Amino acid sequence: MILEQIESENDIKKVDKSQYSLLAQEIRDFLIRKISVTGGHLGSNLGAVELTMALHLSLNLPEDKIIWDVGHQSYTHKMLTGRREGFENLRKFGGMSGFPKRKESECDCFDTGHSSTSISAGLGLVKARDINKENHTVVSVIGDGSLTGGMAYEALNNAGRLETNFIIVLNDNNMSISENVGGISKYLNNLRTADGYLGLKIGIYNRLKALPNGEAVVSKIRKAKSSMKQLVIPGMFFEEMGITYLGPVDGHNIEDMTKAMREAKRCKSAVLVHVLTQKGKGFDPAQRHPARFHGAEPFDIITGVPVALKKKANYTDVFSTVMLKLAARDEKVVAITAAMPDGTGLKRFRNLYPERFFDVGIAEEHAVTFAAGLAAGGMKPIVAIYSSFLQRAYDQILHDVCIQNLPVVFAIDRAGLVGSDGETHQGIFDLSFLSSIPNMHIMAPKNKWELSDMLKFAVSLNAPIAIRYPRGEAFDGLEEHRADIAYGKAEVIFEGSSVAIFAVGSMVKVAVQVREQLELAGVSCTLVNARFVKPIDVAVLREFSVSHELFVTMEENVASGGYGQKVRECLADFDTQPELIAISIPDEYVEHGNVDLLKKEVGIDVDSVVTKITSFLANR
Amino acid sequence: MILEQIESENDIKKVDKSQYSLLAQEIRDFLIRKISVTGGHLGSNLGAVELTMALHLSLNLPEDKIIWDVGHQSYTHKMLTGRREGFENLRKFGGMSGFPKRKESECDCFDTGHSSTSISAGLGLVKARDINKENHTVVSVIGDGSLTGGMAYEALNNAGRLETNFIIVLNDNNMSISENVGGISKYLNNLRTADGYLGLKIGIYNRLKALPNGEAVVSKIRKAKSSMKQLVIPGMFFEEMGITYLGPVDGHNIEDMTKAMREAKRCKSAVLVHVLTQKGKGFDPAQRHPARFHGAEPFDIITGVPVALKKKANYTDVFSTVMLKLAARDEKVVAITAAMPDGTGLKRFRNLYPERFFDVGIAEEHAVTFAAGLAAGGMKPIVAIYSSFLQRAYDQILHDVCIQNLPVVFAIDRAGLVGSDGETHQGIFDLSFLSSIPNMHIMAPKNKWELSDMLKFAVSLNAPIAIRYPRGEAFDGLEEHRADIAYGKAEVIFEGSSVAIFAVGSMVKVAVQVREQLELAGVSCTLVNARFVKPIDVAVLREFSVSHELFVTMEENVASGGYGQKVRECLADFDTQPELIAISIPDEYVEHGNVDLLKKEVGIDVDSVVTKITSFLANR
Repeated sequence: MILEQIESENDIKKVDKSQYSLLAQEIRDFLIRKISVTGGHLGSNLGAVELTMALHLSLNLPEDKIIWDVGHQSYTHKMLTGRREGFENLRKFGGMSGFPKRKESECDCFDTGHSSTSISAGLGLVKARDINKENHTVVSVIGDGSLTGGMAYEALNNAGRLETNFIIVLNDNNMSISENVGGISKYLNNLRTADGYLGLKIGIYNRLKALPNGEAVVSKIRKAKSSMKQLVIPGMFFEEMGITYLGPVDGHNIEDMTKAMREAKRCKSAVLVHVLTQKGKGFDPAQRHPARFHGAEPFDIITGVPVALKKKANYTDVFSTVMLKLAARDEKVVAITAAMPDGTGLKRFRNLYPERFFDVGIAEEHAVTFAAGLAAGGMKPIVAIYSSFLQRAYDQILHDVCIQNLPVVFAIDRAGLVGSDGETHQGIFDLSFLSSIPNMHIMAPKNKWELSDMLKFAVSLNAPIAIRYPRGEAFDGLEEHRADIAYGKAEVIFEGSSVAIFAVGSMVKVAVQVREQLELAGVSCTLVNARFVKPIDVAVLREFSVSHELFVTMEENVASGGYGQKVRECLADFDTQPELIAISIPDEYVEHGNVDLLKKEVGIDVDSVVTKITSFLANR
Repeated sequence: MILEQIESENDIKKVDKSQYSLLAQEIRDFLIRKISVTGGHLGSNLGAVELTMALHLSLNLPEDKIIWDVGHQSYTHKMLTGRREGFENLRKFGGMSGFPKRKESECDCFDTGHSSTSISAGLGLVKARDINKENHTVVSVIGDGSLTGGMAYEALNNAGRLETNFIIVLNDNNMSISENVGGISKYLNNLRTADGYLGLKIGIYNRLKALPNGEAVVSKIRKAKSSMKQLVIPGMFFEEMGITYLGPVDGHNIEDMTKAMREAKRCKSAVLVHVLTQKGKGFDPAQRHPARFHGAEPFDIITGVPVALKKKANYTDVFSTVMLKLAARDEKVVAITAAMPDGTGLKRFRNLYPERFFDVGIAEEHAVTFAAGLAAGGMKPIVAIYSSFLQRAYDQILHDVCIQNLPVVFAIDRAGLVGSDGETHQGIFDLSFLSSIPNMHIMAPKNKWELSDMLKFAVSLNAPIAIRYPRGEAFDGLEEHRADIAYGKAEVIFEGSSVAIFAVGSMVKVAVQVREQLELAGVSCTLVNARFVKPIDVAVLREFSVSHELFVTMEENVASGGYGQKVRECLADFDTQPELIAISIPDEYVEHGNVDLLKKEVGIDVDSVVTKITSFLANR
């Protein structure tokens, strides 16, 4: 195995050229074998094998810097920098992250996770390099999907006047997580068919030359200056911003890419190397089902079929189904996603109601203000965005939706701990940032039926409202508890006398078990499903404050600005004030790992909560 | 006066063509006269007089929709839609807003304030129109400065594949608030010198024709398809995104603009009309000092000199001076602003240390991640952004700075109530959204000396830290209280025995007066300057909890996730628990008006606080 000779960064340079394709094959085999067991991002990594090899051959790590946009395509980079063994525990608690991490390796120079950050970060590293009078190379590797994010454009705009070297590698596989949208992707599509790197900028000349008397024109143009010259260069979109365009280059041809990198390194400006790759390359099932193999569960290595068949519906499935009902019932209902038609469950909506479905690309800010515009135009928009990505649109929610009190419904999937994606993807801040916003309403369902009820309620509210629900299997207990949703009202599920638990959304399931254990221990326990985090149900709190000695709040969110703090504030106004234990996620980032493990780790699992309550009761 | 004939929308259509320039003059005179008294945005409005007239002549309001990006250029629009009298109380409490407001007029179809939202909102209105099978025209008017914001690009990208009419008017005055940066502004500069609208798309042909044998080439090109054709069209940047480009058009020539609008309305796609205007047009001082007349204080109508001369330094001045000291002392110190070198006080830094100064344009997201990159490269970046604009970068702070615990200093100007700009600009959420973020530190200075001390402390901390300070005059009392900043420690200013006030930043000044009144009334009063909102000084709270019967927290921020909630949480752990009155801004948007008036309105002024405390003490 050639792969075994690669123990650390730059070892790849000892490999003979003739063995590159063999090495690429070994890397692919390794990735498929490992990810089939652990799960992880497969398609994007298979597509970037040769690209990563070419970068490692062209650069000196860790002096030179590579910033991987989003970062889930950095597996080959990890393999080439001494972290092959890490794949045994990829994305497991305590194991190797699926994203670049500075704390993991000196060769990871900047942590990523969300999209479209790499050019900004790279530009920062470039400016730091120049101020420090160093002379290493900085390379930002960004996918065509990430290029739809506004930040990437803000950064390109700033890179446009750079008079020093900065290499942006556009890893163009013609899709983001599902497929691309918008003018830019169409534009890139046209470029893809343009003459390749080896005929760099010659194609257009040739086409002109083919016209009668074109030869003379071309010769004049060659001598002409600035604007005239630009007119006959491919990649004008970038060139017009002041960024040198090289490409397109075959992203599975290492020689072409190293040649392009040599040329790119000579530029005294920002230079974009347009590399064409194929997502899932070398593994048939991944090529055929790119969305499924974006972030894959463990799968059968031959067929590509997931090993563990899903048994129960998850909240995304429920959302998906309810959306169809809502759309059928009300023609004003429209749906918006930011590049996640599969992930958010809107694919069926798209197929049935294409004219009312909008995939805006990786562009959360636009998604939200676009929804505000739709609402101002009389529609009932439902914006489905994962919790951690919605952080991007905090200002748009506050400034464009809520000031005008527009009826936009936010369907927040992946709220709470998400597991193996780790720190960057945990959805543990939404209750906080949404709570700070006037006019906003926030709900969280206890089980799958309640998500359905809440969505119907939300669409009829005529005000900004968010519904947050977690990743994974939907809770299907408490079916018999299906009272109508009443504005601002919590739901009392079980009524006891000593301890009153107020649980938000996903924590109701946990609270049911906590209550069972407490009852077994002889503690009489009330269980309230909060339903609304904003506005909070003060009446139910007041009612039980008289009869209970201890309140327990439970939420899968950080404490600051969360549900517990709101309850505590309410309590202060009451005549009788029970003690309060507020269960929430501590003020720390939560790493990757199995969700159940993580819950235990941060102290929001059944045992931790029971222990806290019983020891409190014992120590009174 | 022609102006007096215009009592409501569409009245302008009754004005004879020959009188347009007279009307424009009357509008300018009116604006200058009114704004010289009330203050307001002058330069941008003077620049957009003819543009607004042309839009009103070309459209039918309120059926047709105009979305004014940022919105401070909508004064002429207000005059032409029956709101001339509103200028008597422009930006005053209870008076007319300086921004478009749906609640003010049917002709304001979407509220704006922050930059770069208009294309997203416009696209929403377009889609709503088409779904509703209506056929009005939607026009987004966006400045060239706003075009550097990523959201605008996300929206352009989505507009690129539109097969229905949507007009984007690019109001290009070659500056945002100060001056433009980046590749796009350079690109627009080149377009400005291109052949105008009337010679639309002909210029390039002519230049080609001038070449020997060019004639034949041009004729071939005219017949050629797609990509070849695109090569000879100006505005390729937009065209390549799929947006039809018309322009440039003289933005002070009404006939040219209405002609361009007619053509634009015929397009079955998104179409960008590039209009060239001059900021401050018609008022010499405003043309000479565009930054000063961006948002002007009342001024002398002849000389343009501000009426009230500033007497005391404001916090921005203090920041400005300290930054020079920090830069001189430490070569790693770099400064970043998002299009606000004047407003944030970084102009002198720019002049003295141009290589360490970065104006990224209106691009807050990029600004923060760029700073993270600089910090990862060993620099000590200080990012100066107004509180309400920093909302845009919540995810970048959380995801790019704080996960990696990078030493980025956030200098947050305009924190708290800002006054006449109103709802969209109040900086009353930063303590909340920053508090939710792990690894973040938050400070607020009580007076001008403390801002200086805190900045020095922040630069030496080696972790993410934010310092928030308000708009306007810096408090210069309590000079004798200048203890060193100690990590996480509050400062006890006066020690009493009954009531303990814990005030954050700007509220210390208020608290000093509250204390004086309480002491006069015989209530012994401790005053603590919180200094740190995160981490909070638990020790000082614990200490005084034993000796005081009442705690009062004071902050110029909403309650949710703010300082008061944190203090309340701490109290719960103490053996003795004083009562707590938490003074903060209620959960509502705060309109425009004089800051002192607004403080009274929301109950955070001296009298309101004293009343709350004394009535609490009386009712015990």
